[in-house]
Amino acid sequence: MSSDPFFHPVSGFDLPRFAGVPTFMRLPHVPLDDPRLSDVQIGLIGSPWDSGTTNRPGPRHGPRQLRDLSTMIRAQNGATGVRPFEMVNCADLGDVSPNPADIQDAMDRITRFFETVREHGIRPLTAGGDHLNSLPILRALGTPEPLGMVHFDSHTDLFHSYFGGTMYTHGTPFRRAIEEELLDPKRVVQIGIRGSTYDSEDRDFADSVGVRVIPIEEFHARGVEDVMTEAREIVGSKPTYLSYDIDFIDPAFAPGTGTPEVGGPNSYQALQVIRLLDGVDIVGADLVEVSPPFDPSGATAFLGVSVMFEILCQMAVTMTRG
Amino acid sequence: MSSDPFFHPVSGFDLPRFAGVPTFMRLPHVPLDDPRLSDVQIGLIGSPWDSGTTNRPGPRHGPRQLRDLSTMIRAQNGATGVRPFEMVNCADLGDVSPNPADIQDAMDRITRFFETVREHGIRPLTAGGDHLNSLPILRALGTPEPLGMVHFDSHTDLFHSYFGGTMYTHGTPFRRAIEEELLDPKRVVQIGIRGSTYDSEDRDFADSVGVRVIPIEEFHARGVEDVMTEAREIVGSKPTYLSYDIDFIDPAFAPGTGTPEVGGPNSYQALQVIRLLDGVDIVGADLVEVSPPFDPSGATAFLGVSVMFEILCQMAVTMTRG
Amino acid sequence: MSSDPFFHPVSGFDLPRFAGVPTFMRLPHVPLDDPRLSDVQIGLIGSPWDSGTTNRPGPRHGPRQLRDLSTMIRAQNGATGVRPFEMVNCADLGDVSPNPADIQDAMDRITRFFETVREHGIRPLTAGGDHLNSLPILRALGTPEPLGMVHFDSHTDLFHSYFGGTMYTHGTPFRRAIEEELLDPKRVVQIGIRGSTYDSEDRDFADSVGVRVIPIEEFHARGVEDVMTEAREIVGSKPTYLSYDIDFIDPAFAPGTGTPEVGGPNSYQALQVIRLLDGVDIVGADLVEVSPPFDPSGATAFLGVSVMFEILCQMAVTMTRG
Amino acid sequence: MSSDPFFHPVSGFDLPRFAGVPTFMRLPHVPLDDPRLSDVQIGLIGSPWDSGTTNRPGPRHGPRQLRDLSTMIRAQNGATGVRPFEMVNCADLGDVSPNPADIQDAMDRITRFFETVREHGIRPLTAGGDHLNSLPILRALGTPEPLGMVHFDSHTDLFHSYFGGTMYTHGTPFRRAIEEELLDPKRVVQIGIRGSTYDSEDRDFADSVGVRVIPIEEFHARGVEDVMTEAREIVGSKPTYLSYDIDFIDPAFAPGTGTPEVGGPNSYQALQVIRLLDGVDIVGADLVEVSPPFDPSGATAFLGVSVMFEILCQMAVTMTRG
Amino acid sequence: MSSDPFFHPVSGFDLPRFAGVPTFMRLPHVPLDDPRLSDVQIGLIGSPWDSGTTNRPGPRHGPRQLRDLSTMIRAQNGATGVRPFEMVNCADLGDVSPNPADIQDAMDRITRFFETVREHGIRPLTAGGDHLNSLPILRALGTPEPLGMVHFDSHTDLFHSYFGGTMYTHGTPFRRAIEEELLDPKRVVQIGIRGSTYDSEDRDFADSVGVRVIPIEEFHARGVEDVMTEAREIVGSKPTYLSYDIDFIDPAFAPGTGTPEVGGPNSYQALQVIRLLDGVDIVGADLVEVSPPFDPSGATAFLGVSVMFEILCQMAVTMTRG
Amino acid sequence: MSSDPFFHPVSGFDLPRFAGVPTFMRLPHVPLDDPRLSDVQIGLIGSPWDSGTTNRPGPRHGPRQLRDLSTMIRAQNGATGVRPFEMVNCADLGDVSPNPADIQDAMDRITRFFETVREHGIRPLTAGGDHLNSLPILRALGTPEPLGMVHFDSHTDLFHSYFGGTMYTHGTPFRRAIEEELLDPKRVVQIGIRGSTYDSEDRDFADSVGVRVIPIEEFHARGVEDVMTEAREIVGSKPTYLSYDIDFIDPAFAPGTGTPEVGGPNSYQALQVIRLLDGVDIVGADLVEVSPPFDPSGATAFLGVSVMFEILCQMAVTMTRG
Repeated sequence: MSSDPFFHPVSGFDLPRFAGVPTFMRLPHVPLDDPRLSDVQIGLIGSPWDSGTTNRPGPRHGPRQLRDLSTMIRAQNGATGVRPFEMVNCADLGDVSPNPADIQDAMDRITRFFETVREHGIRPLTAGGDHLNSLPILRALGTPEPLGMVHFDSHTDLFHSYFGGTMYTHGTPFRRAIEEELLDPKRVVQIGIRGSTYDSEDRDFADSVGVRVIPIEEFHARGVEDVMTEAREIVGSKPTYLSYDIDFIDPAFAPGTGTPEVGGPNSYQALQVIRLLDGVDIVGADLVEVSPPFDPSGATAFLGVSVMFEILCQMAVTMTRG
Repeated sequence: MSSDPFFHPVSGFDLPRFAGVPTFMRLPHVPLDDPRLSDVQIGLIGSPWDSGTTNRPGPRHGPRQLRDLSTMIRAQNGATGVRPFEMVNCADLGDVSPNPADIQDAMDRITRFFETVREHGIRPLTAGGDHLNSLPILRALGTPEPLGMVHFDSHTDLFHSYFGGTMYTHGTPFRRAIEEELLDPKRVVQIGIRGSTYDSEDRDFADSVGVRVIPIEEFHARGVEDVMTEAREIVGSKPTYLSYDIDFIDPAFAPGTGTPEVGGPNSYQALQVIRLLDGVDIVGADLVEVSPPFDPSGATAFLGVSVMFEILCQMAVTMTRG
Repeated sequence: MSSDPFFHPVSGFDLPRFAGVPTFMRLPHVPLDDPRLSDVQIGLIGSPWDSGTTNRPGPRHGPRQLRDLSTMIRAQNGATGVRPFEMVNCADLGDVSPNPADIQDAMDRITRFFETVREHGIRPLTAGGDHLNSLPILRALGTPEPLGMVHFDSHTDLFHSYFGGTMYTHGTPFRRAIEEELLDPKRVVQIGIRGSTYDSEDRDFADSVGVRVIPIEEFHARGVEDVMTEAREIVGSKPTYLSYDIDFIDPAFAPGTGTPEVGGPNSYQALQVIRLLDGVDIVGADLVEVSPPFDPSGATAFLGVSVMFEILCQMAVTMTRG
Repeated sequence: MSSDPFFHPVSGFDLPRFAGVPTFMRLPHVPLDDPRLSDVQIGLIGSPWDSGTTNRPGPRHGPRQLRDLSTMIRAQNGATGVRPFEMVNCADLGDVSPNPADIQDAMDRITRFFETVREHGIRPLTAGGDHLNSLPILRALGTPEPLGMVHFDSHTDLFHSYFGGTMYTHGTPFRRAIEEELLDPKRVVQIGIRGSTYDSEDRDFADSVGVRVIPIEEFHARGVEDVMTEAREIVGSKPTYLSYDIDFIDPAFAPGTGTPEVGGPNSYQALQVIRLLDGVDIVGADLVEVSPPFDPSGATAFLGVSVMFEILCQMAVTMTRG
Repeated sequence: MSSDPFFHPVSGFDLPRFAGVPTFMRLPHVPLDDPRLSDVQIGLIGSPWDSGTTNRPGPRHGPRQLRDLSTMIRAQNGATGVRPFEMVNCADLGDVSPNPADIQDAMDRITRFFETVREHGIRPLTAGGDHLNSLPILRALGTPEPLGMVHFDSHTDLFHSYFGGTMYTHGTPFRRAIEEELLDPKRVVQIGIRGSTYDSEDRDFADSVGVRVIPIEEFHARGVEDVMTEAREIVGSKPTYLSYDIDFIDPAFAPGTGTPEVGGPNSYQALQVIRLLDGVDIVGADLVEVSPPFDPSGATAFLGVSVMFEILCQMAVTMTRG
Repeated sequence: MSSDPFFHPVSGFDLPRFAGVPTFMRLPHVPLDDPRLSDVQIGLIGSPWDSGTTNRPGPRHGPRQLRDLSTMIRAQNGATGVRPFEMVNCADLGDVSPNPADIQDAMDRITRFFETVREHGIRPLTAGGDHLNSLPILRALGTPEPLGMVHFDSHTDLFHSYFGGTMYTHGTPFRRAIEEELLDPKRVVQIGIRGSTYDSEDRDFADSVGVRVIPIEEFHARGVEDVMTEAREIVGSKPTYLSYDIDFIDPAFAPGTGTPEVGGPNSYQALQVIRLLDGVDIVGADLVEVSPPFDPSGATAFLGVSVMFEILCQMAVTMTRG
């Protein structure tokens, strides 16, 4: 199987990589009302919304900067030789229109957008936005059957509530998703957890429902390959969501984020963990918490789109394997 | 009348200005539950909340950076010779605790904080936060009698709603305040308005209720003194609120803000407009929209606290005049 | 006359200004091979090429950043009330594909692009790129009849050659353009010239062919209105090109450029000079030398697009006056 | 044993972490003249002085920025589960008032401050300032019995003098401290030493008095655990000072310092070395050379306070072990 | 009279301005032990010392960055047409070697350096360093006859002492210089004074000895030409020192300095004040307080060297007038 | 054998490292027309040219910033104890004068410069500039006998052409050098290759001529020592060029470059690979692609000069072993 040339990105040999209107990875822009939408197999989507942020805001600017830096990505994976854009039809579906001043309205808009995406049989690869975005996305993808999830992060995002009862923040999305049965907790693995914490309430919840938490100490001690073998076993071959918080990576490599925690993986490990997801049926993925105001140089966004490209390659390989 | 030495700031000759826990202008920290609260006459307050921001967030970090840079402010006004801290008891009352993930809850918390301040007879000088903060503050100060207002800004903030009906954003506070009769529109003057606009709906509203809008073209053409004479006449001698959006000033002088508009006043004019408010009964004031993520150097915050110091001097002079 | 709604920009009330694939001023992207090209009246174009730069490179990144910041521009001119997008059909025509490693090839590509634009009757408003871009653009627009030119800059760009005979640099475009009879030197006015110079060879040339140079000392002494009255007289009512080098503006307002010169106009004057071009028949315009690597904050680009919007408004008014 | 709730930090669930007057780790501010001083067990102190700096100054601004970023630290150690603030009474004792223009006066002021701290039985955890601060601190703590020291750094700071005889710089504190018998050289270990050097005079001195120097090559070759086992053996169970120069860590992780040396440990190792000090009786500690002017983003300060939190946890565990 | 071609700067047409070892204005480097020293008429000197700084250090890095940016200066003054390097022999004399950790030793070194300069009949144009540098320089130049001084600054630097008796800081140099009879106070004018102050002790001293202080309010009200006419009258035709603190200029134009004060002159006025010193016999000059750590972009240094070039042109014109 | 003291660098104990006109490593400046040129054994050279850059320009500013940061390098290698400046005569030969607006002219100028260097028996250690600089350098060094090469990079730079036939870009130098028989492909090893690619054309060429490519996956899997053992075997004992692209190193450590690729070596490995070149006869070397506009802090340049110092030590050891 090979892709429709309409969906091939613009080459840097034809138009230098700093030129042109920046879409994700220089793919064609196919909005939801475009007749070519039905041909898309993987949709790259921006969800520029960060109202769930409890500390330093900014990820709403993530999709813009990620698109900008994504023009640095070329056609072929240097490590694996995979050429994803020739395997499946990829397109930039544009951004969800969030409401930055109304959390419930914003979540509804996001869910509706992804329902449309799903109805067209498109697998979404989303650039956030903060981590609360994952909840309205999962509301579109995690029914009727709950999904498994491979979750890279320095935080569990499993807290019950903040500020005396606020249920929807970027620290709570997966608590809600499990409560709403969008995720199957026994098929959820969280990797890289670290940093000082308020208490152990999130970890107690994880234990109580069967979510597997792999803290960074265990990650560093066991090594990437061993950890990812376990991760693959946990999610198995059933449909799985991949959620990648950029703060999984050490802040020296990814400074542009709102809640960094030191002592994380380096950039090579950041890519390796994706390459070791072979065989996992990724039905949707997100890369969240890239916050351009905290990294005007774009280094974090470039690492972010490098991670997105690895995810895209994995998705393309799985989708064409038959 | 002279102030209680307890309320004098720490001198840079005793403790260098880069040293010490940074309170506003190196004043004593007097939280709302402190027994000395009743002795405070002017309270410097942080309201670190920016959930009304429709574009680039960040002003929630304003109070922290404004406190940091405020340690550069010394005891005496170089232009007027006023020594405000020796005239009235000034203190840092700390920050309102906002809820960054719930707009209504946050506004209620702010209003309650300022009601307490008012009940103690303290005139608040607030560091935002975005401009939506002015609404919950005015709910505490603008009853039972509506206030006049001198408003420096590049935007009117008089829009009806955003995003299909969202009523509470940093573009709507004074529309709401007039509707809620917290401000007397005939005693409101807005100075410095400029930039491209969606439409004229805000200006039509201003005209319909009697708010005087002085656009930047008129400001530059008439000069500071002439414009401020008119402003003093509009608000008269009755209680007046002063709201100062840092984006009133040209972004070369104040880059750290979310919605800059080019072509504004310079930093000298930014101070002059305050010095020409002689005789205005400022019962409360705010300096809003300083956004540290867009100005890591702190230059904007330093200009902001310089403006706050001018306001403080004006308030002190008025309060001790008799 | 009113524009086709297809060519209206996306409103910030529908999609927040930080969201979406960034085209110039959120206009539709209409590449040269798009059937709607014939309907376009003003084309916004990026020319991301800076191989003529003799000192600090970077303007090749200008169009990308100008597009990004241009999403801050709204529908209506705050000073004049003009709503250009409702008056004429405006579109983003995308970028010229330059060859960053071959100057002659790059100039040929640029000229061909603008010949196509001209053949469709579109008036181009170009974002550079360095100032050498103006030469290949004028090769498309300045024949068979040479154009007049209003030129804002701190340099004349009239030098003969650099580095022992190199004829094509960003310091020579208008020398070449006059030699090639693309410009009528007697209808050329250069405003804002300043800074230390190698010698007076450029000024001697200007004098010899009748180019009027208004140095910054004269600009500050006479004032904006007086200077612009003379400028309008010089170019008259015949077809005129407008070339605006961002280094015309003082570097405090526009730091992001490669060859700044201190002592220039402020941002208000930067806009005023355009507003005072009433009646000039602007058949094409460029804004050049915005260099993002020297201004990661984007402040220069924001001022640049604010200038572009003023130019666009002037063009729209002239085109619809008819 | 458990701490007095008065000394508990403010929770981010009660007051968001970006809000409030920033004390170290959101602890109560207890100046030396506060009656609660006697209840403090661990005192967090700023020593904002950098007059010993021979190259790039700036660490005088360290305490301010470290306080700012320390509000990101929560209640519980994510790796060990330790909750130090519930174990011992911790407080922010404020800053020493240095004299930035008189080295001897400044050192005297620092020694007096720490004598007071010691007299109250408080163990100090100090944020510098440059490394010369350690000398006046040791003058308060290292008598009558000299202390052992675990010293993380890329430099030995054991030089005799600079600039033809200047004895007090940030390259000489431990030479002086050993000469003054404040440190027992046989119980001193220096870890991470690297970079180009003037000569071997410092290393020769170390050898002559029995200081153990572990250069970075040995550190990387042996691994963290092996090195720290030796370090624990060297200092044994007697009172020990811990001095942590932020330039121990590789500059990619900690760019904000005046004399960086490449090739250092990563941020995970930066924490590990502290966690492996189990059983060491840390009677005082410092974290020095964080220089905010060289890292406006605060990333270095955040890593610095993360290290301080690890040190605090170690101190709390030892102090409560009995 | 014309200069020796040996002393001509390298042209940007021969070697691009970003290339080469950066000396001041691309002049030959002539150290004090060079036999060509006797031929030098104006010596550009770096004095990289900032131990007098009471707040934010950094000016020790000024000479390095000023040299770097000075390669942007070309051969001819754009406003006046003066070509100074062809009029008098100019050279870069290198840097004074300061002792950053011993104030008295450092001042002695500086005085000795300038004594040598003076003995060779060279007029020094010095790049600081902080403002305390002016004192040891004046010790070399201001005897046996005290000098007049034109002093541009936002601070008087006339304070008696800091921190309980410290006599040598960057806030006291001219108090000392008047006490030591290096300056004739009746021939001293200080222009641009502003900002909040500790008290009026400095101004009282100025009044008592006859120093004329022109605060910024008066500067803005009277205009540049009127103020400078008075300045010329005050210093008359006798030997005069020119001391230019970069914080004279508004921080929007010159952010890179340690003690900024808002509301200052713009960059055009910053140059104008020098151009209006016609006829003043400038026997030495300095440009101080450029602090690169607070302006990594170099914009402040570029403005600084632009000011230095104006001073150099004035000195050259006076020296050749004969 | 020991060096002439004339060629010893200035010590930081005599002149602080922030002071003085910055030459490479504080060595004497010996231009090509200086009579001392014949005594030089290793020449440090700047080649400030980046016209081959196909994406983000800036390396033309590399030599200036590398010189600046090189003043941080001291006399002795901390890891090996080597004191290179006492072993061989080292000097700063200044910069090649490139023509930034004419690629062929620029390459000719560079080749001529290095022919002169070679004729004097000097081994060049060059600071770029972009990677195209290596081609004109090799034209001077790689005849009549082709050289071997150890090449550290994330890209092979072996592409045939760009933009439809452009043969000279920073992606093609070694393709040209092999075609021109300046390099012996069987003695070329490329280490660290990674990142997304256009296609495999470069790798196919490498295979066809016998260039050994060690991708980053193999580098990380085998470890530094094993890889470098192979590298030494490939180049053997015959004359070898060393080309070090700063983008070999992970962008967290070296952000200031135009074409970063994530997942690279850390800064310790960056030095180790040089230390493991023992016995390789390095007849010339370059460090390229340091781009200051993308790293105003200079961290990349500091790592760059640290690498250059390691190379210099290796060259000195080999040259004196004989």
